[in-house]
Amino acid sequence: MKYTAHINVMPLKELLDPQGKAVNSSLHNLGLVAVQDVRIGRHITLNIEAATKEEAQAATEEACKKLLVNQVMEAFDYTLTEA
Amino acid sequence: MKYTAHINVMPLKELLDPQGKAVNSSLHNLGLVAVQDVRIGRHITLNIEAATKEEAQAATEEACKKLLVNQVMEAFDYTLTEA
Repeated sequence: MKYTAHINVMPLKELLDPQGKAVNSSLHNLGLVAVQDVRIGRHITLNIEAATKEEAQAATEEACKKLLVNQVMEAFDYTLTEA
Repeated sequence: MKYTAHINVMPLKELLDPQGKAVNSSLHNLGLVAVQDVRIGRHITLNIEAATKEEAQAATEEACKKLLVNQVMEAFDYTLTEA
């Protein structure tokens, strides 16, 4: 079966996000003062071929922990859908 | 009221995603052969102060179109939650 994992990788709340701060200032300069805080991370989609949803879940977590996420500075969450 | 916009910005399906291709190869080298395709975009959260949900929605779309998204190469979707 084919599954799609939708992964969000975001900088930890406790850490500064300089890219987000810069974008926040730019939005204010453009007149969008309603925006108060911006944080920027990555959105990753994986297409996975697996026998069961559990297997797809295991592959997603392994990919995140081994390669996609730096757990010292980032946190991730994901949802898994059947493709 | 405070709202949080969760925005996903992804490269258009029709376009190559070299970063995703590179990550896909790396995952295969790590033994994760179940993963067949990878696409990488950005995940952005905006904290918005607005009177109504419609106002927050308008601010989100303006931010995306004016600054956050290059609509020639990228597509975006978002969800809005009350913070």
